[in-house]
Order: sequence, then structure tokens, then C-alpha cells
Amino acid sequence: MGVKENVQKPLDQLSAELATEMEAVNALIRQRMSSHHAPRIPEVTAHLIEAGGKRLRPMLTLATAKLAGYDGPFHIHLAATVEFIHTATLLHDDVVDESSQRRGRPTANLLWDNKSSVLVGDYLFARSFQLMVEPGNLRTLEILANASATIAEGEVLQLTAAQDLRTDEALYLQVIRGKTAALFSAATEVGGVIAGAPAAQVQAMFDYGDALGIAFQIVDDLLDYGGATQTIGKNVGDDFRERKLTLPVIKAVARADAEERAFWSRTIEKGDQREGDLEQALQLLARHGTMQAARQDALEWAGRAKAALQALPDHPIRAMLSDLADFVVSRVA
Amino acid sequence: MGVKENVQKPLDQLSAELATEMEAVNALIRQRMSSHHAPRIPEVTAHLIEAGGKRLRPMLTLATAKLAGYDGPFHIHLAATVEFIHTATLLHDDVVDESSQRRGRPTANLLWDNKSSVLVGDYLFARSFQLMVEPGNLRTLEILANASATIAEGEVLQLTAAQDLRTDEALYLQVIRGKTAALFSAATEVGGVIAGAPAAQVQAMFDYGDALGIAFQIVDDLLDYGGATQTIGKNVGDDFRERKLTLPVIKAVARADAEERAFWSRTIEKGDQREGDLEQALQLLARHGTMQAARQDALEWAGRAKAALQALPDHPIRAMLSDLADFVVSRVA
Repeated sequence: MGVKENVQKPLDQLSAELATEMEAVNALIRQRMSSHHAPRIPEVTAHLIEAGGKRLRPMLTLATAKLAGYDGPFHIHLAATVEFIHTATLLHDDVVDESSQRRGRPTANLLWDNKSSVLVGDYLFARSFQLMVEPGNLRTLEILANASATIAEGEVLQLTAAQDLRTDEALYLQVIRGKTAALFSAATEVGGVIAGAPAAQVQAMFDYGDALGIAFQIVDDLLDYGGATQTIGKNVGDDFRERKLTLPVIKAVARADAEERAFWSRTIEKGDQREGDLEQALQLLARHGTMQAARQDALEWAGRAKAALQALPDHPIRAMLSDLADFVVSRVA
Repeated sequence: MGVKENVQKPLDQLSAELATEMEAVNALIRQRMSSHHAPRIPEVTAHLIEAGGKRLRPMLTLATAKLAGYDGPFHIHLAATVEFIHTATLLHDDVVDESSQRRGRPTANLLWDNKSSVLVGDYLFARSFQLMVEPGNLRTLEILANASATIAEGEVLQLTAAQDLRTDEALYLQVIRGKTAALFSAATEVGGVIAGAPAAQVQAMFDYGDALGIAFQIVDDLLDYGGATQTIGKNVGDDFRERKLTLPVIKAVARADAEERAFWSRTIEKGDQREGDLEQALQLLARHGTMQAARQDALEWAGRAKAALQALPDHPIRAMLSDLADFVVSRVA
């Protein structure tokens, strides 16, 4: 497939290309996550923001702004905004999912408490809105405010779609487009808007972010079942235990015979999960080839992301964004 | 004192004076709390927004805008924004406080779950930001974004100040100025700003909202101990059980002898609360007259609110706002 050769490279290339800007973003993040009044805030935030996240989303804003020739200061604010929204979402997600680990470290809700995670998440949301006001650009404000609403809507939709075997691929797409792709596409779009790129290019940037975000989330959901090769590592099966319906399961439910359907109904709908059920679920995914089928879908979305880039000017960053789309899917071999 | 005669009247007067505008605000709120994708959102929101809240905060925005002669459409958006921020805060507060009742009805976290309250609160925050972008006024955006950050900061500060007997009146003031007064003062300020009122008037509107919000919260905290007359109704003692340090307790701790200090340390710091402790706490407040002393503070803040109004043009609404300041304190006789 050729995609495995790109492992880690595209992100490194982008990081190198955007090193100066990313340093400015990190400085702004550190400055704005502080609070003189409530020291709990920087404690909780630093735990998450310094935890070695890839800064993928703010990098997308820096990338499209630079690709479109922007040389002003405000892509820094917009990129920091995007990271703050992402971090606030993670804090609230971990409360909602009752998670105890993220990126191999204990979550904030475990180290402090759910209360701190809820309130510090609110603080970061508010900080993100302060940041996005500063460029004084109403269009980027609108895009980021809309993205925030779409993310929250996607999360609520996921909550009500969980445990419901009627959840189909169309609804799944709607959920991940909201909870994940909306921030990717807002990140790429605001970079173009702040740079004053022509409307067709801004649309292409949006389309790239949207398709990349969808591919990214499909792959994330595959990794939760150990990836297409189904290596059982730690944390495999979180979605199964939380009774979330993700793409490989939705495809397996659609192809289930009566006995298999009874299994999914018991484990996902009724939440009656027993020893060996995760292994049984993995066998059903394998029997119907749904991990490979979902990976194929992710590859198609990555292809759409790359196709969107054709409308953008020829630029080293354009090639890196193209490689990034391959890389995102290469995480699941 | 004369204040008791105003019971309910000032709010009724303002409601009548601003009836047309408030109808527009309510229509906009109903429109924007909807979600085609996630029906859970309007369910949860309607539970709270239709629950007969007094709409005090959005009324403040309508009042100052009208007082300053505004006749444009955007005070409606700003007022709806203020109510959305308030509602989102209530949803998250009930999660953080693990409350089961608000305004005599079961809370959303009890009727649905904490997850829904967290995520629907996020949705309302995002919706509030969409709304505040629409007037296209960067100054009102800035004020409301800042207020959101200040509110979250105040809530976190309250979390870390709870259970800590070193919390003094200055820290208490900082907490309530953040968690409560910041939205009152933003509400009154944006009304003036959108109306293009002179800077000195805008400052006076801010000062009025700030002082009114502080008086309001002091009184709220008094009511939690049954009011100055200490009638034990239902819900009395929630703050004591949650080990929150509010003004009457802070004053009582400051005047405590060794034995009393041991009582506060056991119940508030260590959280070791037994049968009869609430009654004991009430006796200590009575012994040192701290309910009356806190009520006196609230009266002083109401006085400051009324004094600020002197800088505003003579207008029927100005008199109503003055009465409102008296009314807020009259809730605790």
C-alpha cells in the first residue's frame, strides 16, 4: 500500500516547517491557561496540554494560513483557540466517558475530580472565545463558534446513539463529523479565511479538514478494537465496554445472523457483558471482515482529503498535508 | 426598613415595561435551543428554561439598552446570550454540586444523567457564542467572552476555597463577584454598549450590575441558612452539607472561640457531619449575629447599586432598577 513508509514523517515535516509559529502558539497557550485567582486551573490544564499531545489541530490552522501566504499575527490566536477547544472537549469527554487514562497517563478527573474537569473545561472554552475575538475577524469567529456548537451536538448525539443497535452508518458519520471532523474543518478553514484566500480555496481547505477528520476518527475507532490486525493491547475494547456503536460494530450488526444479533443485543443494548465477550466481539468483526471494510472507508476519506488539496496552490505544505492524510490511515495497518 | 413593601413589584414593573422585548427574547431562546440532530438537547434545555425562571439577567440587558435609548434589534440577541450562559452554568453547577432539586423541581442531572447535563451545557455555551457574534459588535463580544471566563474562574475558585476555613471575606467577595456578579455586570454593560451610551454611563451600568449581583448572591447564601429569621424550610443547609464557606459562616468562624472553631473544623474542613450539626451551626450564626451582619452587607451593596444609577439619565426604568436593588435584599427579611 506504500502508506506505512510515511510513519511519523508527515507530522515531523509539518512540525519542522511550522516550528516558529508553533512555538508562538505554545507560548500563547501557556500564557492564557494561567489564572491568578484559581491555581487549580493551570494545574489541571498543564496536565493535559503539556502531556505530549501532537498539536495536530492547531498545526492545521498554521498550515493552511501559511499555504495561503498569510504573514500576519492572528493565525497564532486562531491555532491556540483550536487547541483550547480541543482540550476543553477532552476534559469533558473524560468525565462523560468516566475514563481513567488518556495518552497513557491518568486523566484529570481521576487526579483531581469530575468537578474540576467540568469547571476547568468551561474555563478553557471561555478562554478560547476570548482568544478568537482578538483577531477582530467576524467570519473566523462565526466558523469557530459554529464548530463549538457542532462538536457539542455531535457529543450529545453520540450519547443518545450509544446502546442503540439501530444506529447505522449514516448516523455514525453524523456523530463523528460533529464530534471530531468539525474541529478539523474549522481549523483548516479559519487558516484560509484569516489569510484572505479566495472562496474556492477556503472551501477546499474545509473539505480537506472534514475528510481528514472523518478518516482520523474511523481509524481511532478501529484502534479501539486493536486495529485491523487486532493486536490486543491495553485499553482495547473501551468502546465495547462503554457500549458505543462504532463503524466495525455497525457493519457487523448489519451482517449479523439471529444468534449474532442476540449477542450484540445482550452486550451493547442491554449492557450484560461477561468474561470472553470482547473476544467474541472481535471474532464477529473478523468473521465479517468489518475491520478491513472500515479501514477501506478510512482510506476513501483520506483519498477525498487529498483530492480536495488539488484546488490549492502548489506549495511544500500542500504535499505535506497530502502525506498527512496517508499517515492518518497508516496508524492502522 | 420599608424595603418589604416592594415585594415582587420591581420585577413585575420591569417585566411590564419590557414585555415586547422579552417576548422576542423568549422566541429567540426557543428557536436557538432546538437541535434537529440531537433531540435530547431541547428536552434538557426546555426543562430548565421553561421552568419559570425570572429571566432577571436578560431583563437587565433589555433595561439598560432601553434606558440608553436603543431602538435596534440586537439587545434581543445579547439578552438571549446572557440567559444561555446562565442556563449552561446552572446545568454544570448542578453536576458539580450533585444537586437533585432546582426551583422545586428535579434537576436535569437527576432526570437524565450527568453526561447529558455536561454536554447540553456545552451546547448552550456554544450557542451563546453564536448568538453574541451576530450583532457584529466586537466590544460586546469581548465583554461577554470575558464574563464567561470570569464565571468559570469564580466557580473553580469556589471549589478550591470550599472546606478551607482560611477563606476570608475578601476571597468570598472574589468568588461571588466571579460566579454571580460577572454575568449581572456584563448584562447591564452590554445593554449600554450596544445602545452607544457614553463611557461614563456604561461604567455606571457595569457598577450597578456588579453591586446588584453581589447583593443578590449574599442574599442567596443567607437564604440557604433560612434567611435572617432562620426559618428552616426545605433545602436549608445545602451549603453547610456541601462544606461551602459563605458569608455568615465566614463571619462566624472569624468570631469563633476555640470550641466553636473545633466545630467548624470538624464539619466544614473534615466533613464529619452528624445529626444536629446544622442546628448547631445555625445557633452559632445566631450567637454572633452573622446573619444580620451579612444582611447588612447586602444592604450596603444594594445601596452602591442605587448610587451608581445616579449617573444615568432620568427614566422610568432607572427608578425600577433602583427598586430592584431594594427588592433583591428584601427577599431576606
